[in-house]
Amino acid sequence: MIPYQIIEKKSQGQHLSDSEIRDFILAYTDGSIPDYQMSALLMAIFIKGMTTEETLALTKVMLESGVRMDFSSAPGFVADKHSTGGVGDKVSILLAPILAVLDIHIPMISGRGLGHSGGTLDKLESIPGFSVNLELDDWHDMVMKEHVGLIGQTGNICPADKKIYALRDVTATVRSIPLISASIMSKKIAEGIQGLVLDVKTGNGAFMQTPDESRVLANSLVSIGKRYGIKTTALITDMNQPLGSAIGNWFEMEESARALQGDGPADLMDVTYALGAEILRMSDPDLSEAMAIELQAKTVADGSAFEKLKRITELQGGDPRVLDNLSEYPKTKYSGTIRAPIAGFLSKVDTMALGFAGIELGAGRRKITDAIDYSSGMYIKARIGDKLNRGDEILTVYSNDEKSLEEVLASGEEYFSIDQSPPEIPPLILERIE
Amino acid sequence: MIPYQIIEKKSQGQHLSDSEIRDFILAYTDGSIPDYQMSALLMAIFIKGMTTEETLALTKVMLESGVRMDFSSAPGFVADKHSTGGVGDKVSILLAPILAVLDIHIPMISGRGLGHSGGTLDKLESIPGFSVNLELDDWHDMVMKEHVGLIGQTGNICPADKKIYALRDVTATVRSIPLISASIMSKKIAEGIQGLVLDVKTGNGAFMQTPDESRVLANSLVSIGKRYGIKTTALITDMNQPLGSAIGNWFEMEESARALQGDGPADLMDVTYALGAEILRMSDPDLSEAMAIELQAKTVADGSAFEKLKRITELQGGDPRVLDNLSEYPKTKYSGTIRAPIAGFLSKVDTMALGFAGIELGAGRRKITDAIDYSSGMYIKARIGDKLNRGDEILTVYSNDEKSLEEVLASGEEYFSIDQSPPEIPPLILERIE
Repeated sequence: MIPYQIIEKKSQGQHLSDSEIRDFILAYTDGSIPDYQMSALLMAIFIKGMTTEETLALTKVMLESGVRMDFSSAPGFVADKHSTGGVGDKVSILLAPILAVLDIHIPMISGRGLGHSGGTLDKLESIPGFSVNLELDDWHDMVMKEHVGLIGQTGNICPADKKIYALRDVTATVRSIPLISASIMSKKIAEGIQGLVLDVKTGNGAFMQTPDESRVLANSLVSIGKRYGIKTTALITDMNQPLGSAIGNWFEMEESARALQGDGPADLMDVTYALGAEILRMSDPDLSEAMAIELQAKTVADGSAFEKLKRITELQGGDPRVLDNLSEYPKTKYSGTIRAPIAGFLSKVDTMALGFAGIELGAGRRKITDAIDYSSGMYIKARIGDKLNRGDEILTVYSNDEKSLEEVLASGEEYFSIDQSPPEIPPLILERIE
Repeated sequence: MIPYQIIEKKSQGQHLSDSEIRDFILAYTDGSIPDYQMSALLMAIFIKGMTTEETLALTKVMLESGVRMDFSSAPGFVADKHSTGGVGDKVSILLAPILAVLDIHIPMISGRGLGHSGGTLDKLESIPGFSVNLELDDWHDMVMKEHVGLIGQTGNICPADKKIYALRDVTATVRSIPLISASIMSKKIAEGIQGLVLDVKTGNGAFMQTPDESRVLANSLVSIGKRYGIKTTALITDMNQPLGSAIGNWFEMEESARALQGDGPADLMDVTYALGAEILRMSDPDLSEAMAIELQAKTVADGSAFEKLKRITELQGGDPRVLDNLSEYPKTKYSGTIRAPIAGFLSKVDTMALGFAGIELGAGRRKITDAIDYSSGMYIKARIGDKLNRGDEILTVYSNDEKSLEEVLASGEEYFSIDQSPPEIPPLILERIE
């Protein structure tokens, strides 16, 4: 295998063979191919694309670069949900305990905040003591016993993906459908799951901004899952405004805790239940969608899902008392409000800009080494289509950094458009791919 | 300047501004941008291309990253010739002394062998003691006094190009017209020349294999030269078979020495004189082409060009006696012959394969750290269109490595095609671009 020839082949738009992909990726993972050759190949893939077969070969080598979990002895259905990322998307934090109560086993490997989008791991870590770094054996035990365990990608899970992902992040090769597909699916397959539902976000706060792009990604993800014998479906859901009201790590954790106590925003609950129903119906094909939603709602109504979240927290080293005493969490020093400058209908939210504003407030990282201020963030108080009077609150922002807060407030009106006629309201769930 | 955004912009096929190109390249040169980001940008440029303006900006920053020679006090015309590279191309070794005798000042910066193609520096170094690493001041003095000096790219000449070139060589981003153009022209402009003729090779032994590609490159090179006020023309010349008979460092040096003593192959002399005439006519626009060729032929006939080559050799530390005693140069241990397997007309030469065969024999480097065996190489005994009897010699090969020699001999018949009808003979000089 001559790395030069493989890079050249892809740069000409030719297809790479399974063994070319395998040999290159393994040599990169073990350090015998340097970063600069990998980044040249990544850029060639980014621009020239990959066929389904190439994407499968890439997924396979990433998967086989590390360990693959085995939950075959689990008495219940083993499944996971994955989102392609957005703003205010805290569905995993609700869905993992809900499904665990319903005897679904959820070995969930999540990610951190990336670009403008938040990450489940960062949100969980806003709970004092919560650890997402379990040993794989301990995690396995927890999933077997509690039906759920929430961790980050360890060095043993798809190390090839982990190394390549870090390089993509600094070489502008993130937004590539084959690279995204192989990265997501190798990790999900490594979880040892039987079922997977993908929440492919679409809109101005998603990585794929149009339904067409999102559909291509969804089809790519679903086809890989099926090739590995995993029941896989995808919902394309709206990300033209944040999901729920809270944006920021603790704020989203808090909103999730309230939601599991019956006080969740309608959009958040609708997306959560729709995704959960996909998994419940994979586990039991006779179950109707309505019944699957009702089962989930019951775990919220009877408090069992909230108890499960507290149990997860406790077992992963976190202090569950913060979930019972939400209002006692430390507050930021500064806050401010963005109000409607004119009366009218909220017609557009610049969701990506809101995500980046969250980072500005301290809720995310500008550099990989930045610390997160878990208590910072914002609440969006209006949804697209809402009728606003002049001066109505649209956004409240919280930060411990006064200057950053002032900057976000100063550009506040740019995040929203207000029209005099009612806008078209984007559907929450656009499409189901199977 | 955010490197990520510049990479992303080019990967989308957008144009980079002068300052984006400048800032990125300077930051790479000083080490603040790592190799892996540069290689991602190089691949994006390789695939998406650059406009004339972008190529000019790249040339400019490469040029300005180092020193620019000043020959404005030279009493004669200051010029150079550059070839895009091929097999058996020893024109520079002939032309530099010829033109120096004719009062043209030639501050020539040459390169080493690259891929299948040979390099002037390696050929010169086949003369014991010959040094191509002069201090810039000494080189300047030599050009002023002797009208010629033959060196390699030093750390002070276009360091940005030097660093980027090494990275292109391992990331499969060499064959890019804007990158080639900026690399060649920045070095040529740094020489401080008034005139430049480019020998843009075309055919199966050239980097640009079709006349169309070669024409695009020639136009790109010529337009950059003109923008810098340098009289620049290009000849597109044939590389569908080696130039002259000798391939390999000493063999080419020896053929050059014989050629300067009046015993040169017709194709080599024709290309040399045609390129030399371009420079002589830049220096004196009243000179006819025929007259310019005659002037050069006279320096060969009267021995002055050969004396100049010996003088250059002596001044650059080499032993000029080897040029007077060509037959005494060390011979290789092994040799062999490839003969015509059938009678017919030589219709095709796989010139690039011959170039790689030369490397196999020891005449070039497989890795940057390989030593060259200067005495190895080959002679091609037939030209396209020649009528061959069965058993006629086509190629004789020489090596100190018996196994490599056997391998080259074994695949010998694949290098040549023999047809029963006379083939079309490729024209030696296809086109002139100005």
